[in-house]
Amino acid sequence: MQVIRYPKREEWEKLIQRPTFDTSSLNDTVSAILSDIKQNGDKAVIQYEEKFDKVKLSSLKVEISEIAESEKKLSEELKTAITTACRNIQKFHQSQAFESRKIETTEGVICWQKAVGIEKVGLYIPGGSAPLFSTVLMLAVPAKIGGCKEIVLCTPPDKNGNINPAILYAAKTAGVNQIYKAGGVQAIGAMAYGTESIPKVYKIFGPGNQYVMAAKQLVSLKDVAIDMPAGPSEVQVIADQTANPAFIAADLLSQAEHGPDSQVILTTTDEKLIDNVLAEIEKQLAELPRKEIAEKALVHSKAILLQNTDEIIDLTNEYAPEHLIIETEDYINIADKIINAGSVFLGNYTPESAGDYASGTNHTLPTNGYAKAYSGVNLDSFIKKITFQEISREGIQNLGNTIEIMAENELLFAHKNAITLRLKE
Amino acid sequence: MQVIRYPKREEWEKLIQRPTFDTSSLNDTVSAILSDIKQNGDKAVIQYEEKFDKVKLSSLKVEISEIAESEKKLSEELKTAITTACRNIQKFHQSQAFESRKIETTEGVICWQKAVGIEKVGLYIPGGSAPLFSTVLMLAVPAKIGGCKEIVLCTPPDKNGNINPAILYAAKTAGVNQIYKAGGVQAIGAMAYGTESIPKVYKIFGPGNQYVMAAKQLVSLKDVAIDMPAGPSEVQVIADQTANPAFIAADLLSQAEHGPDSQVILTTTDEKLIDNVLAEIEKQLAELPRKEIAEKALVHSKAILLQNTDEIIDLTNEYAPEHLIIETEDYINIADKIINAGSVFLGNYTPESAGDYASGTNHTLPTNGYAKAYSGVNLDSFIKKITFQEISREGIQNLGNTIEIMAENELLFAHKNAITLRLKE
Repeated sequence: MQVIRYPKREEWEKLIQRPTFDTSSLNDTVSAILSDIKQNGDKAVIQYEEKFDKVKLSSLKVEISEIAESEKKLSEELKTAITTACRNIQKFHQSQAFESRKIETTEGVICWQKAVGIEKVGLYIPGGSAPLFSTVLMLAVPAKIGGCKEIVLCTPPDKNGNINPAILYAAKTAGVNQIYKAGGVQAIGAMAYGTESIPKVYKIFGPGNQYVMAAKQLVSLKDVAIDMPAGPSEVQVIADQTANPAFIAADLLSQAEHGPDSQVILTTTDEKLIDNVLAEIEKQLAELPRKEIAEKALVHSKAILLQNTDEIIDLTNEYAPEHLIIETEDYINIADKIINAGSVFLGNYTPESAGDYASGTNHTLPTNGYAKAYSGVNLDSFIKKITFQEISREGIQNLGNTIEIMAENELLFAHKNAITLRLKE
Repeated sequence: MQVIRYPKREEWEKLIQRPTFDTSSLNDTVSAILSDIKQNGDKAVIQYEEKFDKVKLSSLKVEISEIAESEKKLSEELKTAITTACRNIQKFHQSQAFESRKIETTEGVICWQKAVGIEKVGLYIPGGSAPLFSTVLMLAVPAKIGGCKEIVLCTPPDKNGNINPAILYAAKTAGVNQIYKAGGVQAIGAMAYGTESIPKVYKIFGPGNQYVMAAKQLVSLKDVAIDMPAGPSEVQVIADQTANPAFIAADLLSQAEHGPDSQVILTTTDEKLIDNVLAEIEKQLAELPRKEIAEKALVHSKAILLQNTDEIIDLTNEYAPEHLIIETEDYINIADKIINAGSVFLGNYTPESAGDYASGTNHTLPTNGYAKAYSGVNLDSFIKKITFQEISREGIQNLGNTIEIMAENELLFAHKNAITLRLKE
């Protein structure tokens, strides 16, 4: 971990730069797969599954019996944990439900919004070393609460053609209707265009490697909405002398273990704390199964010593971290001043792991500084709001002239005429 | 206008197809301009202004004195109309303000969202034959209410280097901080990357031609968020025998006059109504200054006769129109069943023009079927929601084990350790 002491403001921009992460060089490869899927449907998906996931599939759909079986393969404690996390995520996302209000903007002119679930959504869950069943909950629970009618989940099978039972169990618990064995670019293409087995959806969610991200971006240009652009995961910790160095070290490492390109930043005004945290990191790192990954991430991670809390707040809002943990005495005061971040963890007993799994907040969050413009996934991500207006005969008398004048000045006389005819009637 | 009688369901997909609208062929041209702007800033913007807008600018910023002057150049009636519309748009968008609620998902585990305005937003207002001052209101009013601190507006000047006073007046009325003389791709590039004069923003809004749309899509891949993808404008009218054919004709024509690629669709179960509307269109068309444009749009527009109201509703939700006008006796019943549309206009006295200008709803809406996944611009478009969680020592005792089990099963032991250390303390 690099230690940077009292950097000048003009050095900040460089200091908080993300690793560059341009997927456009993959676009040719990815485009070719996407158009193959578009043209050849299931057949192409099955071919790419053989090529990339080394599995020969006869069908893509996961049968109800396979989903039911999953229950038997999991420990009771894991099933209880999944159910507990699911319930918390439900509670928090349910509380985000939109309440429509009718507003009379002018006498006789009533406007309102109606929230409707996006009819068909696609959730992508990557494969790899660990089964990301927590991400299944994070995407499927709000999709269900939002009222999405078709919730399609794609995830790559293992070499025997099986899906990890924890993923199936989480999907069932959260209420996913349809699960398909498909990974990578072929899964994104299948959900964007539809195949014989896999339905076309209107919005695609979920994490993935650089190929998946490139595919999501390409299909989002024309065919389907996506949750948000993505980059490597990252955490920033703000801490003072009241913080526990062992906790901070554990929090930093839990981000570092995600991947070699993870970013981990500690900001403080307490130089001694940095020393203590670094010592704790050494100690804890030795015990970690994913030690090598975490070490690589730490190479480009930073402990930054700053002059005062105002500087910390300014740097944080400039960095716009995906995760922000505030382990200070006055964490509420600092939290009030945070305007750019994905999810914020307050106090010494609120580690990022809590939000990653079970506090109830969503863990699909804007990385790479996107928190300046994007929210993390939340109930809004699964609905759209339609506006309605209802104008009475009296209402158009009250507002008609205003509209006529504006239309005329924009040289749109048919627009004006639609009013004039009604006023004359 | 083509008349289609009782089409079979399997013919619908083709029937409601949009004109294809692929901007990717423009990407090379647009990319070249964007990278020039990125590298050469103001100098490049000024060069492209000379090339495309035929104007030699010495500076890009519109001075406060120019904005103040605008007031003198407008009629009192236009100023009053702009103020009235602004007030209605304010009322409706203010009513969309987010109220945060704290939720205790588990005893000692409290989660909430905080809405924060996107700090820096860019609004693009195209030039062309008519000054789109109404779009200034539609974008700047919610930006202001949302709490955006820097609201940057770019719009191309005329050949004398002036901006239409109605645009300046609307900007001033709505509270825009900064206005710049820049149009097209160069304006989008300037707001995406920042130049010496024009600040970099985090999200870009607003309509434009195919070049502007291609530029917005390209910068959205990495550098900045955008409001939504866009296609030609469109309206669908649902009507029955209680509707007034003259009103319907006026509503269809007010969409048709937007541009030759506008889409206009009438759906009804009343064959006689179609005849009457077509006759009215002929009559009204003759009087329109933008007759030629409207005629071109009508060539690929359709009057569709359907069997019953259920068919009309299904076809509407499949089409997902940007604007939907329901001029029927039981419009509320039909409105309840609409799940895909941008903005809906109810009853005989609610023409699209009302929402285009002054009812209070936003006129920046999803075209091209995007209403299946996207909302129109609304207050949400200018904010992001940060999630917070605060867990007490008791809370982590209650939830810690659940998190440990999940982390362990995802093979993320540093995540688990962040909990274990806290439970042990």
